[in-house]
Amino acid sequence: MVVGEMPDGVDLLVVGGGPGGYVAALTAAQLGRRVVLVDVAGPAGLGGVCVNVGCIPSKALIELASTVHDRTSWAARGVPSPSTDIDMNAFQTWKGGVVTSLNSGVKSLLKAANVEIRTGYFRFTRPDQGVVERGDGPPTHIQFKSCILATGSRPTYLDVLPHDGHRILDSTDVLDLDHLPQSAAIIGGGYIGVELGTALAKLGVAVSIIETAPTLLPTVDASVGNLVTKRLRALGVSVLTEATVTGDDGSMLHFTTTHGPDSLRVETVIVAVGRVPNTEDIGLDALRVTPNKSGLLDVGPDRLITRQVAAIGDITPGPALAHKATAEAHVAAEVLSGHSSIFDPTTLSTVIFSDPEVATTGLSAAEATDRGYNVDTATFPLSASGRARTLNDSIGMTQWIVDKSVGVVLGAQIVGAHATELIGEAALAIEMGSHLEDIAGTIHPHPTMSESLPEAALVGLSRPIHIPQRQ
Amino acid sequence: MVVGEMPDGVDLLVVGGGPGGYVAALTAAQLGRRVVLVDVAGPAGLGGVCVNVGCIPSKALIELASTVHDRTSWAARGVPSPSTDIDMNAFQTWKGGVVTSLNSGVKSLLKAANVEIRTGYFRFTRPDQGVVERGDGPPTHIQFKSCILATGSRPTYLDVLPHDGHRILDSTDVLDLDHLPQSAAIIGGGYIGVELGTALAKLGVAVSIIETAPTLLPTVDASVGNLVTKRLRALGVSVLTEATVTGDDGSMLHFTTTHGPDSLRVETVIVAVGRVPNTEDIGLDALRVTPNKSGLLDVGPDRLITRQVAAIGDITPGPALAHKATAEAHVAAEVLSGHSSIFDPTTLSTVIFSDPEVATTGLSAAEATDRGYNVDTATFPLSASGRARTLNDSIGMTQWIVDKSVGVVLGAQIVGAHATELIGEAALAIEMGSHLEDIAGTIHPHPTMSESLPEAALVGLSRPIHIPQRQ
Repeated sequence: MVVGEMPDGVDLLVVGGGPGGYVAALTAAQLGRRVVLVDVAGPAGLGGVCVNVGCIPSKALIELASTVHDRTSWAARGVPSPSTDIDMNAFQTWKGGVVTSLNSGVKSLLKAANVEIRTGYFRFTRPDQGVVERGDGPPTHIQFKSCILATGSRPTYLDVLPHDGHRILDSTDVLDLDHLPQSAAIIGGGYIGVELGTALAKLGVAVSIIETAPTLLPTVDASVGNLVTKRLRALGVSVLTEATVTGDDGSMLHFTTTHGPDSLRVETVIVAVGRVPNTEDIGLDALRVTPNKSGLLDVGPDRLITRQVAAIGDITPGPALAHKATAEAHVAAEVLSGHSSIFDPTTLSTVIFSDPEVATTGLSAAEATDRGYNVDTATFPLSASGRARTLNDSIGMTQWIVDKSVGVVLGAQIVGAHATELIGEAALAIEMGSHLEDIAGTIHPHPTMSESLPEAALVGLSRPIHIPQRQ
Repeated sequence: MVVGEMPDGVDLLVVGGGPGGYVAALTAAQLGRRVVLVDVAGPAGLGGVCVNVGCIPSKALIELASTVHDRTSWAARGVPSPSTDIDMNAFQTWKGGVVTSLNSGVKSLLKAANVEIRTGYFRFTRPDQGVVERGDGPPTHIQFKSCILATGSRPTYLDVLPHDGHRILDSTDVLDLDHLPQSAAIIGGGYIGVELGTALAKLGVAVSIIETAPTLLPTVDASVGNLVTKRLRALGVSVLTEATVTGDDGSMLHFTTTHGPDSLRVETVIVAVGRVPNTEDIGLDALRVTPNKSGLLDVGPDRLITRQVAAIGDITPGPALAHKATAEAHVAAEVLSGHSSIFDPTTLSTVIFSDPEVATTGLSAAEATDRGYNVDTATFPLSASGRARTLNDSIGMTQWIVDKSVGVVLGAQIVGAHATELIGEAALAIEMGSHLEDIAGTIHPHPTMSESLPEAALVGLSRPIHIPQRQ
């Protein structure tokens, strides 16, 4: 700051317009704060990665792929499906409309809440000040009473596979394809790689997934990862685990497996190996804050990194999920506005739009055992679900993780049709301290997949209905 | 009973193999009872109306119709849909397979639980005895310690429209169609008529729905009924309310509306005006029990109609729903086996597989007001849901009915994509005595329709996120 230049005084500054930042801004405004939100892309960045190049457009692509793929299964059930070319331009036009409407929706909400939106790159210069730089004008300076940092994350790139946007793509590029490649190698078998791989395979692309770990979806139970792998293989996907990419020569992708060096001819290479938090070059030195070795900002339950500054979303430890950022946004806005609030990740769910869908919440059986609980699991297989049969999709299960001594549910994992919609009920069950009896005693409507929750509870109570009783 | 003929002694007798009867049999067997189940159709009747000619095959038909109809909407989103004829025989083969596998599943469960299945028509002859008649042999006599009556219901017919299975159909006939008619008039705009009408319209049949009440779906809020009516009309369905059928001459259906007599040329007439409980001619006199004027058996929370006999399912008051029968089955088996148990319909949900889907649980706003609660409603419109946008289906809402004085949720209605799967969470919320804060504080995964539950809760707490705050 040039001597004599007066910084603009801001009551509460939010940096980043994603699902963490814009919700923080709205919450703070509701609490009576005057809020300025700065995003490097300005109004166009509202909704962040999630709305613009992540959760939302990926779900649109997955819907497209499921619809196209379902036609195959309906051909055997009375609805012939003459093959037709997919018009990716028409798809992109629709998808663009969805994204634009949600982005505009956020803009309207912020406007209605009197949140001022500014465009530029923010960097701290002092514990209560920062500078906003933009290409088309002089930098401006801001002095804030409170600041919520929600700068998010970006795809990780690999040195051996330099991103070029043509042959070597990231997930953002894939969601914007205006034509489908013949073949694609996806580097990384985490949830992004699996979701994209499933969608592309259903759209007719010859897909290979290359993962360094021994199983896909390494963050969930191996049995679940194996179920998803089996379905991927049934879709024709080549799944290569314990495999590491070594390079690409423009037509062949090179990698090593436990059997030695190998290579693969593919049209497109998609790198989906994780995300990096956007914490460099934002002036954290001025706050005397240092990211941890993963680049994340360690925070307590109040999300504060200084007395005046909170950090939320992908730049804090934990899974990089929109709903985590949103939940943290409420906490940060409340804490910085003098209210007592803590972030409680107990019911933070993970949802994977794979085939079958996967969703988990609360503790896994292994985590619960590590914490000293006397753990029981109660599993209902979807092969016994009438609704699953009518959906022609009986692969999967609903499982409660239970504290055996008192019968309270500690966690759940659901695999199968509508798993991503059902996990919310499991999260509420944990939040409310439900016993298996409470879930079994709640009448669920027939025929629905939601019946699998009380059915699994009845298994845990040794009173199963639609599977034989354990002898 | 012929003098000297010894009745067969049965510990616990179940009459009827539907979702009430077979679950009662399984529960009683788990409680250590020796169980005999009698069904007029024998093993083929297991699963009852629900599995064989109701919930399950109707959902299969609705899936077919949704799939066929979705193709239209995808044509504008990049997946052209050359029109193809639907092969109803292929559909029926698949549907038959689903039904058969579920019927066999029930048979296996009963076998594993050592439940004996007998074929025949049961009628009480004394307070603890009855006779089983079958066409192909002499009647047999049963003396029981306990009996659970679960004889179910059948479609109501209209005198002016005698059922012939060719032109004048009931819902069972429709689910078995091996070709689609060009046109169909559906008599009755309750949930069965609306579900069938929606499915047939999506399959290209010219549908008219004729309902005596002023709105369709008279058991739900008029605003919800109107939403469904609007979508039906968009599908090309002619919706005639305050209309009464007067007769049919083999090609023209005659009816009167508020404008006077009218008629309609249709190929098929489908009668869906309700269901009649199967309580005649089962020897209730021998129990000194008389059905009420609707033919239903009045029961207390223990479901007993005598000290030894319980009645469950469609023959007791309340909606004729499979999950009601199943919940009552547990109660009846427990009570008759000396355990204390009551049927609590608080969280009994209604689900309608219309377009959009409709689901309700707990009290409606009107019911809650009638009971003296200080009622508030908290509504989140699906137009503000990102997940709804990616599903291309933003019509609908999630609404909590709340006791304003303490913030506890009393009921919910959900209209829109996956409503039938989401209502289970609302039922659990009521069961657990949840406050709006509990629901808002449970992190729901993004992007899902389940987020509409906490979003609506935040509306009720005056802290909405994705809709503007009430001024």
